[in-house]
Amino acid sequence: MERLPGFRDFYPEPLPARDAWGAEVRQYIFQQWRNAAHRYSFREYDGPPIEPLELYTTKSGEEIVGQLYNFTDKGDRAVALRAEMTPTLARMIAAHERNYKKPIKWFAIPQLFRYERQQKGRLREHFQLNADILGEAAPAADAELIALLIDSLRALKLSREDFVVRLSSRSAWQEFFDRRCADRAKAYEFYQAIDKLERDDAKQSEQKLATLGFSLADVKHFIEAGEPAADLSAVLQDLAARGLGDYVRVDYGVIRGLAYYTGVVFEAYDRKGEFRANLVRLISGGKVNVPALGFGMGDVVLTELLKERGLLPAFDSKLDVFCLIEDEGSRADSLRLIQNLRDAGLSVDYPLVAAKPDKQFKRALELGVAHTARVERVGGDLNVRIKDLHTRAEKVVGFERAAKELAGLE
Amino acid sequence: MERLPGFRDFYPEPLPARDAWGAEVRQYIFQQWRNAAHRYSFREYDGPPIEPLELYTTKSGEEIVGQLYNFTDKGDRAVALRAEMTPTLARMIAAHERNYKKPIKWFAIPQLFRYERQQKGRLREHFQLNADILGEAAPAADAELIALLIDSLRALKLSREDFVVRLSSRSAWQEFFDRRCADRAKAYEFYQAIDKLERDDAKQSEQKLATLGFSLADVKHFIEAGEPAADLSAVLQDLAARGLGDYVRVDYGVIRGLAYYTGVVFEAYDRKGEFRANLVRLISGGKVNVPALGFGMGDVVLTELLKERGLLPAFDSKLDVFCLIEDEGSRADSLRLIQNLRDAGLSVDYPLVAAKPDKQFKRALELGVAHTARVERVGGDLNVRIKDLHTRAEKVVGFERAAKELAGLE
Repeated sequence: MERLPGFRDFYPEPLPARDAWGAEVRQYIFQQWRNAAHRYSFREYDGPPIEPLELYTTKSGEEIVGQLYNFTDKGDRAVALRAEMTPTLARMIAAHERNYKKPIKWFAIPQLFRYERQQKGRLREHFQLNADILGEAAPAADAELIALLIDSLRALKLSREDFVVRLSSRSAWQEFFDRRCADRAKAYEFYQAIDKLERDDAKQSEQKLATLGFSLADVKHFIEAGEPAADLSAVLQDLAARGLGDYVRVDYGVIRGLAYYTGVVFEAYDRKGEFRANLVRLISGGKVNVPALGFGMGDVVLTELLKERGLLPAFDSKLDVFCLIEDEGSRADSLRLIQNLRDAGLSVDYPLVAAKPDKQFKRALELGVAHTARVERVGGDLNVRIKDLHTRAEKVVGFERAAKELAGLE
Repeated sequence: MERLPGFRDFYPEPLPARDAWGAEVRQYIFQQWRNAAHRYSFREYDGPPIEPLELYTTKSGEEIVGQLYNFTDKGDRAVALRAEMTPTLARMIAAHERNYKKPIKWFAIPQLFRYERQQKGRLREHFQLNADILGEAAPAADAELIALLIDSLRALKLSREDFVVRLSSRSAWQEFFDRRCADRAKAYEFYQAIDKLERDDAKQSEQKLATLGFSLADVKHFIEAGEPAADLSAVLQDLAARGLGDYVRVDYGVIRGLAYYTGVVFEAYDRKGEFRANLVRLISGGKVNVPALGFGMGDVVLTELLKERGLLPAFDSKLDVFCLIEDEGSRADSLRLIQNLRDAGLSVDYPLVAAKPDKQFKRALELGVAHTARVERVGGDLNVRIKDLHTRAEKVVGFERAAKELAGLE
């Protein structure tokens, strides 16, 4: 029996195949994200992995349904597996906004889902670090979010050679559009064309833009000039003060937020404050109106990048001690030792059933353990023989001292 | 707009209501579970939160569908939100069994789902610590699992006054049944009746058992005597050697594994080795045949118990430093300080926009921070004034020393 197409199993190390996904890798990335968010004073939240379909159509219209993992539940409700975190956040904030002092700085690490019929071999889920600031829409809030984005990548040992955050500005584009076209109704189509500039060939883009009354050359010139608008300048200045200026680049070619699984440039940030604020208002039925900014960063391309760059730590030698049980007469004492070691915070394994000494020792080596420990009873004295598997040095300590001794060595 | 019935939102502290669920509480429990599993040398794995419906019906028959959160996906597949972890584990092991040396000790913390039409106000999801040992079916493997179960509760500061692990024995029951009834076809119905002994009234139980040719008095006598079978004796001896004997009790009233959200006795362990082993064989199409033992422990009743016992730590003062920015001229230097502090691992917050000193100070107090830091430029010297909010003591250190100084204080 197979898992569903587009989903991942996460195995422990050693991974069963080169392209298999690792649970410990995933946990490592989540932990680094969580630590970074914590340093930035963001608090964790989460919601259900399934939401009313309406939560997404309210925001994006009925046409979004074609991309959602939606279905009808047993209670005849139209529902969807969580497609993005912002609508859930908006729902949660709308319900309890008054409970929290502003600005609200929250993060989550949700698993997100989508289902497009025509996609073959593409993932239907990913995990995402989502961070949002609500209640403050100044460029300083953008800068704080971008700095967190940068530091959650730096925490994974990625450097400015590995990534750059591309910054765009909706207000700069708005201005560009307004100066050339009076018909705001055309704006959505215009942004769609810009968004596809990198993927479409020049002729297609030229045609699309021409229909709307724009020229590709004019658009390209605007992008290449990359003249920072007032909001972007403030963001850049803030990041420069932090020493993070080299991690960002103005790039008006970016219209959307973080792209969903698209290609190697996974880092991008789009100021979509107006958009998110509207979402909270929409979902609260107009009752709550707070500015909101945020970003999402996926785990899929990031994990591949970390693998390719050799930046993942080794996950195979987490075990501290293997307890050898050379005769069954010492099993009870050995179990007591094992409990002492684990109570002291050490990671310990041992042979569950009687096994020959060389087989036990082989197992200890397989597990990549640093030390073995063996209970020895000499006359009335109960001791523990500790062996360092790297230096092969041995020492014998009293039974009650063993946990302290081994905890000090690790 | 509301979340779906039976699902939970997880809020940061301070929780918006007495009965609200906390994301930080959840994370704390998961971390303690993960640490305990790590001390016991269990490796983490995970699978998709959605599986082919067949994965569950293969094991439990078509009648299980009534309890599942199942539906038809856009590709016309019969699927279900993950209802329990064992079938996913069996599928994963069946696919890559040879890659892992035995015994395999794995754990996961999945979110599980169910949907029974008639349930009102009951949760449709919960999280579970799942731990399994594959490739070794000796009572010693049971003992190791039960010890992990006990220690994952002890790690949450629960003591033997708070819980007891009730141990049953399928083989003891089998023997009881066989001695009185030759018709094995009646065994399932018999176990169902035993399973409901605590919930049904005596008359109902009496009747059910009588139909099968048993007497309630006889059954009760067997339960009350609680004579440990050979396998249970070995488990009890093993746990006693670890010093964990007081955390378990033989109770033949337990037939099933950990009950799914049922009442206050959430701790129970059922030896279902034979059952799990069959599952791996079934799901691999007969190709893989390894013994398997395991348990699952849910988060819902556990969280309520920890709350009730006052055993949850405070989650509101995780912030180390609040950086005061008393005039905008010092914002750039302050941002550089903030970056230094965060790079040193400290959790730092600050006013995103200009604010009056007393307002900033109030915010620092609200956030429950231990120290404030303020950049001061005196002549050519850049210093940092550090204030301890508990003692109100202040000190001034050089700019470059501030991170080290504050990291030492936390």
